[in-house]
Amino acid sequence: MSHAHPELGAPPELGPDALRVVPLGGLGDIGRNMTVFEHAGRLMIVDVGVLFPEDAQPGVDLILPDFDLVRGRLDAIEAIVLTHAHEDHIGAVPYLLRERQGIPIYGSRLTLALLESKLREHRIKATTHEVVEGEVVKAGPFSLEFVAVNHSIPDALAVFIETAAGTVLHTGDFKLDQLPLDGRITDLRAFARLGERGVDLFMVDSTNAEVRGFVASERDLEPALDRVFNNARGRIVVASFASHIHRIQQIIDVAHRHHRKIAFFGRSMVRNMGVASDLGYLEIPGGILVSSEQLSELPDDEVVLICTGSQGEPMAALSRIANNDHQIKVGPGDTVVLASSLIPGNENAVSRVINGLTRLGAKVVHKGNAMVHVSGHAAAGELLYCYNIVRPRNVMPIHGEPRHLKANAELALATGVPADRIVLTLDGGVVDLVGGVAKVTGAVPCGYVYVDGVSVGDLTEASLKDRRVLGSEGFITCFVVVDSVEGKVTAGPEIQARGFVEDESAFDDVLPKIRDAVEDQLRHGNTDQYALQQVVRRVLGRWVNDQHRRRPMIVPVVVEA
Amino acid sequence: MSHAHPELGAPPELGPDALRVVPLGGLGDIGRNMTVFEHAGRLMIVDVGVLFPEDAQPGVDLILPDFDLVRGRLDAIEAIVLTHAHEDHIGAVPYLLRERQGIPIYGSRLTLALLESKLREHRIKATTHEVVEGEVVKAGPFSLEFVAVNHSIPDALAVFIETAAGTVLHTGDFKLDQLPLDGRITDLRAFARLGERGVDLFMVDSTNAEVRGFVASERDLEPALDRVFNNARGRIVVASFASHIHRIQQIIDVAHRHHRKIAFFGRSMVRNMGVASDLGYLEIPGGILVSSEQLSELPDDEVVLICTGSQGEPMAALSRIANNDHQIKVGPGDTVVLASSLIPGNENAVSRVINGLTRLGAKVVHKGNAMVHVSGHAAAGELLYCYNIVRPRNVMPIHGEPRHLKANAELALATGVPADRIVLTLDGGVVDLVGGVAKVTGAVPCGYVYVDGVSVGDLTEASLKDRRVLGSEGFITCFVVVDSVEGKVTAGPEIQARGFVEDESAFDDVLPKIRDAVEDQLRHGNTDQYALQQVVRRVLGRWVNDQHRRRPMIVPVVVEA
Repeated sequence: MSHAHPELGAPPELGPDALRVVPLGGLGDIGRNMTVFEHAGRLMIVDVGVLFPEDAQPGVDLILPDFDLVRGRLDAIEAIVLTHAHEDHIGAVPYLLRERQGIPIYGSRLTLALLESKLREHRIKATTHEVVEGEVVKAGPFSLEFVAVNHSIPDALAVFIETAAGTVLHTGDFKLDQLPLDGRITDLRAFARLGERGVDLFMVDSTNAEVRGFVASERDLEPALDRVFNNARGRIVVASFASHIHRIQQIIDVAHRHHRKIAFFGRSMVRNMGVASDLGYLEIPGGILVSSEQLSELPDDEVVLICTGSQGEPMAALSRIANNDHQIKVGPGDTVVLASSLIPGNENAVSRVINGLTRLGAKVVHKGNAMVHVSGHAAAGELLYCYNIVRPRNVMPIHGEPRHLKANAELALATGVPADRIVLTLDGGVVDLVGGVAKVTGAVPCGYVYVDGVSVGDLTEASLKDRRVLGSEGFITCFVVVDSVEGKVTAGPEIQARGFVEDESAFDDVLPKIRDAVEDQLRHGNTDQYALQQVVRRVLGRWVNDQHRRRPMIVPVVVEA
Repeated sequence: MSHAHPELGAPPELGPDALRVVPLGGLGDIGRNMTVFEHAGRLMIVDVGVLFPEDAQPGVDLILPDFDLVRGRLDAIEAIVLTHAHEDHIGAVPYLLRERQGIPIYGSRLTLALLESKLREHRIKATTHEVVEGEVVKAGPFSLEFVAVNHSIPDALAVFIETAAGTVLHTGDFKLDQLPLDGRITDLRAFARLGERGVDLFMVDSTNAEVRGFVASERDLEPALDRVFNNARGRIVVASFASHIHRIQQIIDVAHRHHRKIAFFGRSMVRNMGVASDLGYLEIPGGILVSSEQLSELPDDEVVLICTGSQGEPMAALSRIANNDHQIKVGPGDTVVLASSLIPGNENAVSRVINGLTRLGAKVVHKGNAMVHVSGHAAAGELLYCYNIVRPRNVMPIHGEPRHLKANAELALATGVPADRIVLTLDGGVVDLVGGVAKVTGAVPCGYVYVDGVSVGDLTEASLKDRRVLGSEGFITCFVVVDSVEGKVTAGPEIQARGFVEDESAFDDVLPKIRDAVEDQLRHGNTDQYALQQVVRRVLGRWVNDQHRRRPMIVPVVVEA
């Protein structure tokens, strides 16, 4: 197994007999999936997603892939293929289209519908081409065949990419639910057929590679949901992802059997359920859907509220209900179901919601105490089937943190893929397929591009570091106005502190020390603003450390008036 | 079930026939366990622990219970009983002893030894009384009988409290390992005997009440550890809690069988293993323990490093190894074992460590992929045994978030404890036991007391809120010097921003607007400093919102020079 990192140098020039594969996201993190394929001078992109920030990126709205690799060659892009409509696969499309609006986009019906509702918010029009499984399209030197896969959103696709230099099968995000609600199974017959034809490089979702065995079927949630509805005497609130149309379908079906009406809460839930039901992906029995106003007229045991906020997002409906800060009130006798995964990092937020609801008297059902969630990603057992059916020449684990990529590589190895044909790389690693062999040949820059308010890419790592310091230590500013001719401080030192100590009289001790230190400098003829600021910083910093054993950010400003 | 919150009023005066129980921590959070018992005008305290801060308390070192309830009555405290030596049970002792040094402290041998090594760091001497299971001591009107329980640290005790007004059995933290490494089982015979005598109030650890079934025995980790050692060809690094002496004993035993030497890394690991081995709680076979220098001379397959950092703490040995920033280097062929729980909220930090080690080429074994951890707290199945053996008159779930307390209450209910005899309350709830009936009668203040550097209790919620804003949005200060007689700005506006945008030229647009707005005020005779600062805030705030769609903290300073 070649284990490569993007610390490598720039890749070599690409020969005419080579297919280049460059992941710009999704290898190292779970999110911002984007892979660029290059052959014969032309480019093709699979997925353009966002990454959601974690605690090390405070205040960041979204993280985009770095488009630098394609920025100078936008006209060479023959196609963007979108495997499915999750944000980590389509969320950065608007930002790439800002650079060239007309890039042709290929995707399934639902994927394009959800993309378009997103693009409308960004006021961008796209050139889209709807495709279905089994269909083959030509995009420059790339022939693209789409293959049905199932996942936690309907209408997901894998893509088989054929070029003169070799073939790639890219799974997208997928699992192998053998009895999916919509009957649309992951097409292992196509995997087998493509394997027979020859898959030079198999790019495989690693998200659940560490999980042994098999993911249960979405259908297997029905007994637990039925039990919840059988036992519930009051209101039922169900929180889930707004894109998980099959999960919502199950909730609706159970509600229907138990003669309860439903209402949707949360902007994305209302929007997505509208799109899904218009296109026939969601079936809502007649008369069951009511507005939030109608709902409040109905008895508690005749309603189900379906809402967002299953990850404890503070502004979402569920958190506000748990805080008793929403039009919907829950109390003793009511049941709240978190029919969702728990994304790592959200544990505290979700626990706060569960505790809030518990304190209000509600019964809370979640994946920790009932089978109300199954994952959308193939576990180790399922991945083994895929390796044995496809029998690829080379394997490249994608979609995962290093631990997941490594676990997936070990599964490929166990099925007999030779170690030197398993390409373990990270974002920015350049993989060249030549003569049936895939190798890392270099690396390209692929840093995080932060969206922060309206700014895209302006927020630097240095500013984030400042935020981390400010967030744990607070700051102290000290203003001093000097008259360098007279050698005197004419106003200040004036101190402002935030996130540090409340009482500004806490600084009374240090003010004369600062004044003396500055005037001492002035008397010695040192009037340079920067040097005086350093003096203020030193005196104040030492005092804070001695008195408080803290290291707040210190911002001195000395001006001449 | 009476479900009470500390929004209640002050409790009534305590009659001579009543026993009062006031939890000052541990009911609502997992941590800062402390309960005050009052009878006949005298006080007795069980545990005085700390809570570790989470993301909503940035930069805080520790959280203490609010001692206000006992502060005016320090001389009435007959005893502090420490159930075991975990930080969330003993960590706040030094802070309480600062208020009255001589309070008598009761605990087991190991508990007191670890307490004393902590007190030495604080330069505090305590008055301690070593007790053993089965022993009965009198402390004023309280008779205290100690009962052996097992947990994730040796020598833990439950305590049976007898007064003229009734009896209480307090479990401390416990589980029911039936084959513990040291043979010291939780004494269910004593639970039964005390139950026969009559337990008026049973205070029961709720931490694992949501977990079905039974916790496996510490002994059951042996096969997984053996497998790790059998397969390892290079170095083995094991991270665990420095207080988990039995876990470390198992590692040492396995290392010994596999002819590997051991070395300890991390200050608390070195210190605790010294104490435990001096007192005979840890057995280190002769010649097996080496220094870190000796270790580096030995071949990789002859050593085991035992270190701290299993929770991904950034400054601990393990995180620095994972960052390749430690004297110990790991690489391909080496194995790292996280033989520890994963405390909620630490998932991202631990995942960073696992990913770092994976990228270095090490194999990482953790509770997600091997049985290398068992919990220290009784699960639901074990708690049912306890309720059925003790048959208490009243039950009070302790040690847990609201969700855990509620789950524990439901277990008591299932065994036949009447709903109106189950006291569900939170920190600060006052529970009075009178005539065999326990009821919430009021509440006392019990806010978080923050330790922040050397300050104890000075950091306010307002400052923490400022830190949260600063941490996600950064700040902008704007300094203006005015001459109100001339009606002019004489220096500035001078802007400093941190955690916002890098480039200070970003503010060039707004500087003249601020100057104009201030001078406009001055020309109208408005020279009040506060009012002028508000003008600066308004102009700058509006501009930032329009230009950047962000809400950084804005700190305007206007001075007269």
